[in-house]
Amino acid sequence: MTKTAAIIGGGVIGGGWLARFVLNGWNVNLFDPDPQATRKIEEVLKNARHALPMLYDTAMPSEGTITLCDTMEQAVAQADWIQESVPERLDIKHKVLAEIQAHCRADAIIGSSTSGFKPSELQEKSERPDQIMVCHPFNPVYLLPLIEVVPSVQTGADHLARAKDMLTSVGLYPLHVRKEIDAHIADRFLEAVWREGLWLIKDGIATTEEIDNAIRYGFGLRWAQMGLFETYRIAGGEAGMAHFIAQFGPCLEWPWTKLMDVPELTDDLVKMIADQSDAQSGAHSIRELERIRDNNLVAMMRALKQQGKAAGTLIKDHEKSMIPQQAPAKTLRTQTRIVPVDWTDSNGHMNEGRYGQVFSDAADGFLLAVGVDDAYLAGGHSYFTVETSIKFLNETHAGDHIVVDSTVELSEGKKLKLAHEMKRADGTVLATASQFMLHVSLDTRKSCPPVGPVATALQQFS
Amino acid sequence: MTKTAAIIGGGVIGGGWLARFVLNGWNVNLFDPDPQATRKIEEVLKNARHALPMLYDTAMPSEGTITLCDTMEQAVAQADWIQESVPERLDIKHKVLAEIQAHCRADAIIGSSTSGFKPSELQEKSERPDQIMVCHPFNPVYLLPLIEVVPSVQTGADHLARAKDMLTSVGLYPLHVRKEIDAHIADRFLEAVWREGLWLIKDGIATTEEIDNAIRYGFGLRWAQMGLFETYRIAGGEAGMAHFIAQFGPCLEWPWTKLMDVPELTDDLVKMIADQSDAQSGAHSIRELERIRDNNLVAMMRALKQQGKAAGTLIKDHEKSMIPQQAPAKTLRTQTRIVPVDWTDSNGHMNEGRYGQVFSDAADGFLLAVGVDDAYLAGGHSYFTVETSIKFLNETHAGDHIVVDSTVELSEGKKLKLAHEMKRADGTVLATASQFMLHVSLDTRKSCPPVGPVATALQQFS
Repeated sequence: MTKTAAIIGGGVIGGGWLARFVLNGWNVNLFDPDPQATRKIEEVLKNARHALPMLYDTAMPSEGTITLCDTMEQAVAQADWIQESVPERLDIKHKVLAEIQAHCRADAIIGSSTSGFKPSELQEKSERPDQIMVCHPFNPVYLLPLIEVVPSVQTGADHLARAKDMLTSVGLYPLHVRKEIDAHIADRFLEAVWREGLWLIKDGIATTEEIDNAIRYGFGLRWAQMGLFETYRIAGGEAGMAHFIAQFGPCLEWPWTKLMDVPELTDDLVKMIADQSDAQSGAHSIRELERIRDNNLVAMMRALKQQGKAAGTLIKDHEKSMIPQQAPAKTLRTQTRIVPVDWTDSNGHMNEGRYGQVFSDAADGFLLAVGVDDAYLAGGHSYFTVETSIKFLNETHAGDHIVVDSTVELSEGKKLKLAHEMKRADGTVLATASQFMLHVSLDTRKSCPPVGPVATALQQFS
Repeated sequence: MTKTAAIIGGGVIGGGWLARFVLNGWNVNLFDPDPQATRKIEEVLKNARHALPMLYDTAMPSEGTITLCDTMEQAVAQADWIQESVPERLDIKHKVLAEIQAHCRADAIIGSSTSGFKPSELQEKSERPDQIMVCHPFNPVYLLPLIEVVPSVQTGADHLARAKDMLTSVGLYPLHVRKEIDAHIADRFLEAVWREGLWLIKDGIATTEEIDNAIRYGFGLRWAQMGLFETYRIAGGEAGMAHFIAQFGPCLEWPWTKLMDVPELTDDLVKMIADQSDAQSGAHSIRELERIRDNNLVAMMRALKQQGKAAGTLIKDHEKSMIPQQAPAKTLRTQTRIVPVDWTDSNGHMNEGRYGQVFSDAADGFLLAVGVDDAYLAGGHSYFTVETSIKFLNETHAGDHIVVDSTVELSEGKKLKLAHEMKRADGTVLATASQFMLHVSLDTRKSCPPVGPVATALQQFS
């Protein structure tokens, strides 16, 4: 049966929750007295509708309905999930929670988006504390999976279990924080980093942009896929986590940060960390972890390259310096490359779609040689492929060194037909392709003859 | 002319530098008295040869040579770049730097991999301090682009400029740290986070695994592409960075971390941050930044999904719950999805290779309906595509809702031929494809007839 969520307080966080539920097929009741609430929600929804469905290689459920409610009662009365995202003041939270509980079902989950308050603080004046817990999301809520689920001793085990299930069902990851603490877990790190960042700026060491580059070109990429401890486990090498701590432990007493309230590194603490790390990552050898880390980094950095953003721009720039300059010829070596890890599929070999991409890139290689470069595209012309046929002759795997030789079969006005042969470095033919392209105007998106130096360069093939 | 680097001290860091240089075509001289040096370097090189070339869609230069040197003199005499990665003790660093400078060219760059020492400390006993600077890398050095380049007032401007150029030429990002400080920039954040992490473990709040999940399912993904301040600029919304600080500033005085040495949030400091943020990100509106962030997140999370790791596993699991169960039929709706942002190319539309992937996924959709699921693959059988022809009829763009209807044209023993029609939700036909597949054994990688329930399910089409 379709479930219902009540969103109490819109804004970026409440709106993100709303979008997450609605796009997963839940009906949503919104209660927010702010006259701007609808506009704010629509902005978040627009972003969420653009982004969230793109994560999946299948369609999401049909969207649920959104009901703008005039009263708290109307919003929460039938709700399975009630998410409170009102301002971070305990008196406001208490008032809102009391009003919610005056009208909601006893079996409903009441999650609070609070960044800082402990669940026991939220429950202070409640007669049904068992249904209240912290469910702290991360912006953008419609994309990032993490929810810190923090119960107090008064939160009911049944409510907690059902909350986790419901979060998982809308694609979220409930991280059960077993012991309540100010700011939960993630925001403690964010706050420590924020404090250090303020010092660095105040002391004139670095600007906001330099700090961001120091993060996103380095450890940010590591953390996106492994976090802190698994990364350091690898740094410790075969000697293990205790060795890593022994090596970097002394830094705790050095002024490597202005935040100096450090715990004592007792043998007990070292052992606790090493044991937890074994439990977490011990199933893999360090070599395996290195390979997992590297493959993740390659795939993520290639994704950023495709977007032309962050570390991806650096790779693009560097790549440009490596692309060979070639004069046009009837047969040209149009590709020479390594097959990356993100091109394989469940059969353990390069997906057939990636053969199509190799031949598309090969065509780009030929076109570059005749002058179809960034400037030509910026001038409003390009080639679109109209028909491609591929014969798959041998399997190709990640790490294979492959080349493509391309031959002009037809060049006549706007028509261009290329034949490609894809080979391994040892000469084994992996696939052949025939590709028929038309020269187009990027403005009208219609075909037209090539212009300028491209037209001249192509004359030798007609 | 081929350049030469001298790597002083192997291990994971020195080995990473070595691999970065060699794979970019530099010759490398290695000096490391450790009898295990060659083995350690080979392990890093193996990882680097696997991963680094995969970042690029073109071939890297031919590898340079690696020379294992018996003396420091042999290693550094002709080197353009000398990278010191010996243990973190100042007396050792001083001794090694003196020996390097006794034999190296005056115009060579001497970079130190030190995590903590300031360049002025390294230069203390040097007669040519101008050629010495900190060049602090991040593990894995062969993949992560960040190098913190820290000169002292004694470091020569010419040496510094040439150092940055050479780092850029091997795909690195030199972050010029303008004011020397213990631990430079990035490690100050790492150290703050490490200290907070130790407290959380010591206090029994979270385990190493819980902490890693709190990072990699949340802010780690944000930081990999934007870092700290640009992310918070978005959180501040149209009201801007000063608003964000006003909103979260009070937390500085709350116990949100155990690291309490906080700077005072004066008006001057707030203005400095807001101004720097404007200079960094002011060219984009908040809406644009949100879209950039979301597209980066989608692309990176899809990359992790393809790897089946980190946040990608969560998406995969959630996706499974959304894939429709269908009975096999002669014509089947085999795909219904949104075109993601990572599928577009320089023409601003879906790359032809991704049409190939859609039809590959469509075939998977049909095959799933006849019982070719994870278990069937695990049992050692699958289908490989032998030939595909695609007609591209209309352009397709990121965000388009597309469907594919697939029809069985031939099912005969091991042979299976499907015809696909890809349409927009409004019915416009975007492309058609014909796809000829063979049933194979995943052990022998040779064709063979389908088995079990798949053979039975296919009988209705023969």
